[in-house]
Amino acid sequence: MGAADSADYGLLSPAWAGTPVAELTGDRQLLQALLDVELEWVRVLASAGLADPEAPAAVAAVSDASRYDAASLAERAQGGGNPVIPLLADLRTQARESSPKAAAAIHRGATSQDIMDTALMLLARRALEVILADADRAAAALGATARRHAATLCVARTLTQHSLPSTFGLRAAQWLHGVGSAAQGLRTAADNLQLQWGGASGTLAAVSLAAASADPGVERPTAFDLTARLARGLGLAEPLAPWQTNRLPVTALGAALQDFTAAAGKVANDVLLLSRPEIGEVSEPRAAGRGGSSAMPQKQNPVLSVLIRSAALAAPGYGMQLNAAAAAADDERPSGSWHVEWQALRSLLRLAGGAAAKLAELAEGLQIHPEALTRNLESAGPLVVSEKIMAVAAPLLDDGVPGRGKEIIADTVARSLSSGEPFEELLRAAVPPEVLSDAELKNILDPAEYLGEATALIERITAAYPGKPSA
Amino acid sequence: MGAADSADYGLLSPAWAGTPVAELTGDRQLLQALLDVELEWVRVLASAGLADPEAPAAVAAVSDASRYDAASLAERAQGGGNPVIPLLADLRTQARESSPKAAAAIHRGATSQDIMDTALMLLARRALEVILADADRAAAALGATARRHAATLCVARTLTQHSLPSTFGLRAAQWLHGVGSAAQGLRTAADNLQLQWGGASGTLAAVSLAAASADPGVERPTAFDLTARLARGLGLAEPLAPWQTNRLPVTALGAALQDFTAAAGKVANDVLLLSRPEIGEVSEPRAAGRGGSSAMPQKQNPVLSVLIRSAALAAPGYGMQLNAAAAAADDERPSGSWHVEWQALRSLLRLAGGAAAKLAELAEGLQIHPEALTRNLESAGPLVVSEKIMAVAAPLLDDGVPGRGKEIIADTVARSLSSGEPFEELLRAAVPPEVLSDAELKNILDPAEYLGEATALIERITAAYPGKPSA
Amino acid sequence: MGAADSADYGLLSPAWAGTPVAELTGDRQLLQALLDVELEWVRVLASAGLADPEAPAAVAAVSDASRYDAASLAERAQGGGNPVIPLLADLRTQARESSPKAAAAIHRGATSQDIMDTALMLLARRALEVILADADRAAAALGATARRHAATLCVARTLTQHSLPSTFGLRAAQWLHGVGSAAQGLRTAADNLQLQWGGASGTLAAVSLAAASADPGVERPTAFDLTARLARGLGLAEPLAPWQTNRLPVTALGAALQDFTAAAGKVANDVLLLSRPEIGEVSEPRAAGRGGSSAMPQKQNPVLSVLIRSAALAAPGYGMQLNAAAAAADDERPSGSWHVEWQALRSLLRLAGGAAAKLAELAEGLQIHPEALTRNLESAGPLVVSEKIMAVAAPLLDDGVPGRGKEIIADTVARSLSSGEPFEELLRAAVPPEVLSDAELKNILDPAEYLGEATALIERITAAYPGKPSA
Amino acid sequence: MGAADSADYGLLSPAWAGTPVAELTGDRQLLQALLDVELEWVRVLASAGLADPEAPAAVAAVSDASRYDAASLAERAQGGGNPVIPLLADLRTQARESSPKAAAAIHRGATSQDIMDTALMLLARRALEVILADADRAAAALGATARRHAATLCVARTLTQHSLPSTFGLRAAQWLHGVGSAAQGLRTAADNLQLQWGGASGTLAAVSLAAASADPGVERPTAFDLTARLARGLGLAEPLAPWQTNRLPVTALGAALQDFTAAAGKVANDVLLLSRPEIGEVSEPRAAGRGGSSAMPQKQNPVLSVLIRSAALAAPGYGMQLNAAAAAADDERPSGSWHVEWQALRSLLRLAGGAAAKLAELAEGLQIHPEALTRNLESAGPLVVSEKIMAVAAPLLDDGVPGRGKEIIADTVARSLSSGEPFEELLRAAVPPEVLSDAELKNILDPAEYLGEATALIERITAAYPGKPSA
Repeated sequence: MGAADSADYGLLSPAWAGTPVAELTGDRQLLQALLDVELEWVRVLASAGLADPEAPAAVAAVSDASRYDAASLAERAQGGGNPVIPLLADLRTQARESSPKAAAAIHRGATSQDIMDTALMLLARRALEVILADADRAAAALGATARRHAATLCVARTLTQHSLPSTFGLRAAQWLHGVGSAAQGLRTAADNLQLQWGGASGTLAAVSLAAASADPGVERPTAFDLTARLARGLGLAEPLAPWQTNRLPVTALGAALQDFTAAAGKVANDVLLLSRPEIGEVSEPRAAGRGGSSAMPQKQNPVLSVLIRSAALAAPGYGMQLNAAAAAADDERPSGSWHVEWQALRSLLRLAGGAAAKLAELAEGLQIHPEALTRNLESAGPLVVSEKIMAVAAPLLDDGVPGRGKEIIADTVARSLSSGEPFEELLRAAVPPEVLSDAELKNILDPAEYLGEATALIERITAAYPGKPSA
Repeated sequence: MGAADSADYGLLSPAWAGTPVAELTGDRQLLQALLDVELEWVRVLASAGLADPEAPAAVAAVSDASRYDAASLAERAQGGGNPVIPLLADLRTQARESSPKAAAAIHRGATSQDIMDTALMLLARRALEVILADADRAAAALGATARRHAATLCVARTLTQHSLPSTFGLRAAQWLHGVGSAAQGLRTAADNLQLQWGGASGTLAAVSLAAASADPGVERPTAFDLTARLARGLGLAEPLAPWQTNRLPVTALGAALQDFTAAAGKVANDVLLLSRPEIGEVSEPRAAGRGGSSAMPQKQNPVLSVLIRSAALAAPGYGMQLNAAAAAADDERPSGSWHVEWQALRSLLRLAGGAAAKLAELAEGLQIHPEALTRNLESAGPLVVSEKIMAVAAPLLDDGVPGRGKEIIADTVARSLSSGEPFEELLRAAVPPEVLSDAELKNILDPAEYLGEATALIERITAAYPGKPSA
Repeated sequence: MGAADSADYGLLSPAWAGTPVAELTGDRQLLQALLDVELEWVRVLASAGLADPEAPAAVAAVSDASRYDAASLAERAQGGGNPVIPLLADLRTQARESSPKAAAAIHRGATSQDIMDTALMLLARRALEVILADADRAAAALGATARRHAATLCVARTLTQHSLPSTFGLRAAQWLHGVGSAAQGLRTAADNLQLQWGGASGTLAAVSLAAASADPGVERPTAFDLTARLARGLGLAEPLAPWQTNRLPVTALGAALQDFTAAAGKVANDVLLLSRPEIGEVSEPRAAGRGGSSAMPQKQNPVLSVLIRSAALAAPGYGMQLNAAAAAADDERPSGSWHVEWQALRSLLRLAGGAAAKLAELAEGLQIHPEALTRNLESAGPLVVSEKIMAVAAPLLDDGVPGRGKEIIADTVARSLSSGEPFEELLRAAVPPEVLSDAELKNILDPAEYLGEATALIERITAAYPGKPSA
Repeated sequence: MGAADSADYGLLSPAWAGTPVAELTGDRQLLQALLDVELEWVRVLASAGLADPEAPAAVAAVSDASRYDAASLAERAQGGGNPVIPLLADLRTQARESSPKAAAAIHRGATSQDIMDTALMLLARRALEVILADADRAAAALGATARRHAATLCVARTLTQHSLPSTFGLRAAQWLHGVGSAAQGLRTAADNLQLQWGGASGTLAAVSLAAASADPGVERPTAFDLTARLARGLGLAEPLAPWQTNRLPVTALGAALQDFTAAAGKVANDVLLLSRPEIGEVSEPRAAGRGGSSAMPQKQNPVLSVLIRSAALAAPGYGMQLNAAAAAADDERPSGSWHVEWQALRSLLRLAGGAAAKLAELAEGLQIHPEALTRNLESAGPLVVSEKIMAVAAPLLDDGVPGRGKEIIADTVARSLSSGEPFEELLRAAVPPEVLSDAELKNILDPAEYLGEATALIERITAAYPGKPSA
């Protein structure tokens, strides 16, 4: 065995294995992000006359991650506690061969935490682009479903039991409400990803020293000028100050990722319930090789939802690691808690990436079964509008005694439930025609006439979260 | 024993017991918030002609929490799974005595989740006012310390070891960076606290029904008009749609509270380290009855920091409950996960409230010991500027062989460490005076000359987070 | 407002409010446990001639928790960071009035952590007695259900879909498997609850000093003799050594409590699924005032299961606090992480207590609906035994080509699913009668003939976990 | 890019990268464990005459993990939600080439959860062997240190402040107390690792069917005979019943692993504190390439402890995932929560593996600096025995007024602290020589005379946890 035998290819993580985000966050792309940060810094230094003009090209020539051995670096990372230290050694060695001056410019004034934190933000930005595209696809599909089924009646459920009439459109709109607002949170998080740059102890001392060494002929940059250029070059926001011990940028990202997996998880939870054979209101999209069982050929498992749900269930454990790490920070670099963040953050990106990809597929291909929606609503019976009956019919029966009507209705319900006699007939018998005409009674008992603001809510939500279908 | 014997007065929670936020979030104030929501809704209904004009006054007359028995309500809450149901029964009973019409108006069109969610947001708003005031006090004090000690040298530490020179002002500024940005997050969270109102299943059906029953003579309000008025009346934001199953408003609040306890925890972690007798750079403010030990009269424990740290360590467990609950939501009302949020959210408010109060006291009274700061910096020796020596002196010794100078310096360091000979002298011997004059060498070895952007960072951070001292 | 207004009576915790364990773990009983430990230690000292012979009686006279003000103590606990310090002051004051010698004996050689840790173990033991009694009731009821329904056919479900035939008895037996093994774990935990006693820094120095001061005439006890007597007197196990910084006794208890809430949660999850109206296989026991909805009179919510599930969902957050606290321990007394344990441990006891009480009621009163079990199994159709068909019929159709038979069966399944033709008929047509007779085919298709070891498993599980019905 | 680019070689996990346990738990070894389980089952079937006698050899020939592509399997695992399904397809294909009968025997009567659960237990057993060997090494080294330093005085610290005299031997013994009891828990967990085998829905239906098909000539095995043989063959314990939905075997393992990382974390926390330059009581063992900083050549970071601490901080997040997953189980196979366990369990094994390896190295090479221990104890001054002074000297000064002596001592302490006058002299002045002779006073003030049961505790703990040095 060798170090490479430790590799995790995702065999235990079908929730994200095989997705683009898995690759964008693998050790290979992490290495690339680390190298990208080092290279960009050399560019900034050279642009300010603080490194040899040829240095960027020389460093660029050795900045492809495929030139480095991730497994070996991982093993050597134990020595200093992070992978930047051995990578830097290898990078300098490779650069030195063509340009000792370039090698000397690499990492000037930086510390390994600067590279690590910034590279993880870069990795997050790259992963978030894909996650957001999938979230937009899902949102577009959910919105389309919401509008298409704005008039498709169904029964709502609270605490597992039938409650009121609703529409499938509103259900889908509420899925969109969750997914859309979580995606908005992710977008804000993506826009706020910050450079972290403070040098060995957060004073930017070595950067200032480097800046001060600029040729007197040119306009001397300040340390902040240099870090601003670096942030711009990497597509990250410029920080107020180094945040090596203030980890809110990390926990904020983690919170946004958890909100997204939770929103996707809500959809999955519902699909798992609604696709149970006894309920049968929806089915997952079928695809070759998905959901089958070798031993039970008839079985079609809702695998997309199972995996989304597993991502949603797993995410809080990683989020808690980020929050606990932030709370344990000490000194001018956290002694151990910083190290906890890396894998937790990557895992959250991967879970969100897997959940987004699967949710997009689920939302785009979800099969809705109107006959089951109708069947289940009808099985709930007229009692599904009992709230309306209470509100509308009961007062008419009070006969001067407030509350009397409610008692009559409640008795009617109880009698219907115990005797099996149709509630409509019992109610008709209990309410004189002069109080409520047949037509009025029919209206009261019609689920389609008790949908409240379902349609308006669909409009509000779909307008707020338009999403974007895949091109 | 009776139900009241279950009471938790905070005996196991010195981190928050006895603070204003503890009271603002106790069962008494929770009851009050529930009653406030019910009352405000009656006012909205009456203002729209949907309830008797006298109803608000009649309900107000019985809406003081002291009229209700929290312990009994807690016990009865088991029946329906939440405290609104028994409270509503008691409230209606009391209202009915003076005004049956008022009793009939109470809770019209609402569901218990509407009341519960909204009351918790109200409770949060009230608690956040106090937390933010304490956070502002802490920020103001930290900012003052940062400015006052902008030139007070100290040694920075990474991974527990001395790294570079810094200033105590920058350390305090970085504490402020954390606390100030977390407080900003709390303020945003406070501004975004939303009404939750959807009726029995999120369709606002009963509200619409009520709205439709308005006297034809007046301008009929829509359901959204009514909920907008309610939000305004309670000082909460108006939601896009009911969020009974999309719990991002809850997790966002939880995340902000965790960020605050983590930022306070970072300060506490450092104070615990820096007030160790061997380090002695700071002491907690003394107060009668605090930090003493009956058996060991000389002992002065940093109790404020211990308790802040305990709050910071505890918070992620509650945060995880909120995130896991959001991920487990199902149907049109979560069957169990909703119930998890209540205590978790209250606990986070309390921990943040306790941490804020103690942090304000700690920040305002922190004693800083310049002689210990100097002693520890000096004990680090000239090696604390080794980075600068490497950057400035080493290249001068390369003598045409890149890297040669670094080797010479490293050898000098190693020799000094092993032999105990003063590094300065060894360095002086290793570097010819024509390469570095005595004055230049002195400058290189002077910690005060290697502070980078410490002062500028203090300015940036204190400008960004001015805080606000207590009146 | 005053400190008492902070009180939490359980208004936000219907999962445990109103249960015996809630009272047994309230601040009142916590105070009592703290007092019990102090008193028992005075008894031990007196028994060894190290305290005035009258001291135990004098201390006992002031050791009733009702003599002390929990809210005031909670507030004053901030000073030293734990409630023992102010309680000790009040206790000594009260004791001094009748006997200064008794007052002097109190707490001799002990430290507040000794009292706190030990009192919490005492509290746990008292709570566990009740929890275990309820767990035993639940186990007895589940076992009875398992045996009663050993032959009641139902359909098993994996990944939400119908899989194979099973029996309701096996389902109940598997619930018992979880609950019974978790209860066994709780019993082990209860038996292992340990005294924690180390004096100010874990050396037992002051206890040794006290022991050494014993009258030379008597046989001098060692410090360990004294702590052994104390453990015995309190009904706790004697520890190998003080565990003030080794918190495995706390995490082990936390793990056992979480296992119990998880096992109860599994039952609740299933009841919530199985009592959905479309599935209808079980109903919760009805009770006056439970599960109703004021607005929707027909609704009967499975509130027991909702609350059990909420306890199961909340528990891991507290468990994580205990584990994180154990990992953060430092020095000879943890500076903050120790303080996290108290509320987390109490919360776990309460959640387990609530879950146990509700589970016992649920298990004893669960209504099982055989007609729905039959209906759902039948709706699954003959495909529910597809595994058996594959195993038994397919090889007979291979006709010399291994795998050929499986293909034929799979085709038959697919055709039945797409065309709606009865699978039995298609299968009969595909399999020549000389290969499988009608009787053999019928046997293959009979769910009752494909139950594997269901009955034997019920026997195994019910024998292993007999439980104990309430007297 | 391809699926392999997702690989995680441990670049973000220096806490475990490069350790034997990392390899033992990589996807390669996971595949091997899955294959080992499938192969052993074929052996069991063949031994009972239920598979072709040649099948085991034929399957063994294709059961080397290197024959399969982990990355491709990971990607395909999305289809069915777990990696067993695609692996089985590949395994059968390979087996079929040499022996269709062997291919037909593979997986007979099993379901993918059987293979997955059992393979993870196998993986855990293999990893635990290594972890326990390292834990034993650490225990042996800590025990040796405890005994060696049984008389090395030091100052104990509570809540970060000096409390009482102690010995370094007791500190090491308490580290051993934690590590040894956690290792004992791991050993118990290793001995209890169970086979999980229930077939498609936990009835063992297909296994029974297979058993029943045994040649009538031989003694027919029962399904339980077969699973017992399988357990034996794999070196796992035989379960009472399938535990596909009762996940206590998983949470118990997770709890034991967390206890171990917490115990190791306690040691690391202390080493991080004690190796701070101002305290300087211990140093980590030096090793080439460890702890260095490229920019700061003098710096020697306690990297072993930093990484152990990071493992301890991360573990509770994974533990919480296991506990939350157990609580979310439903039906006869959990729909998503089962999937959460896999990566969480592997991560805990890896963190424990990394922590154990590093702890063994740390414990074996820890440098202890007696001069610093002495210096810090002396700096605490005579007040470190104030507890003893209070107990012994104070009563002698009461002069008939109980408590008077304590006041005198407390005044003396206060005066010494405020005036800087030596406490010994003030005390001598306050206590008449006839009450306490100079020799008695000296004894009271001698830290070495106030160690309580330190030595006896070292003996108890080292006897209980002897450990085992590496061969």
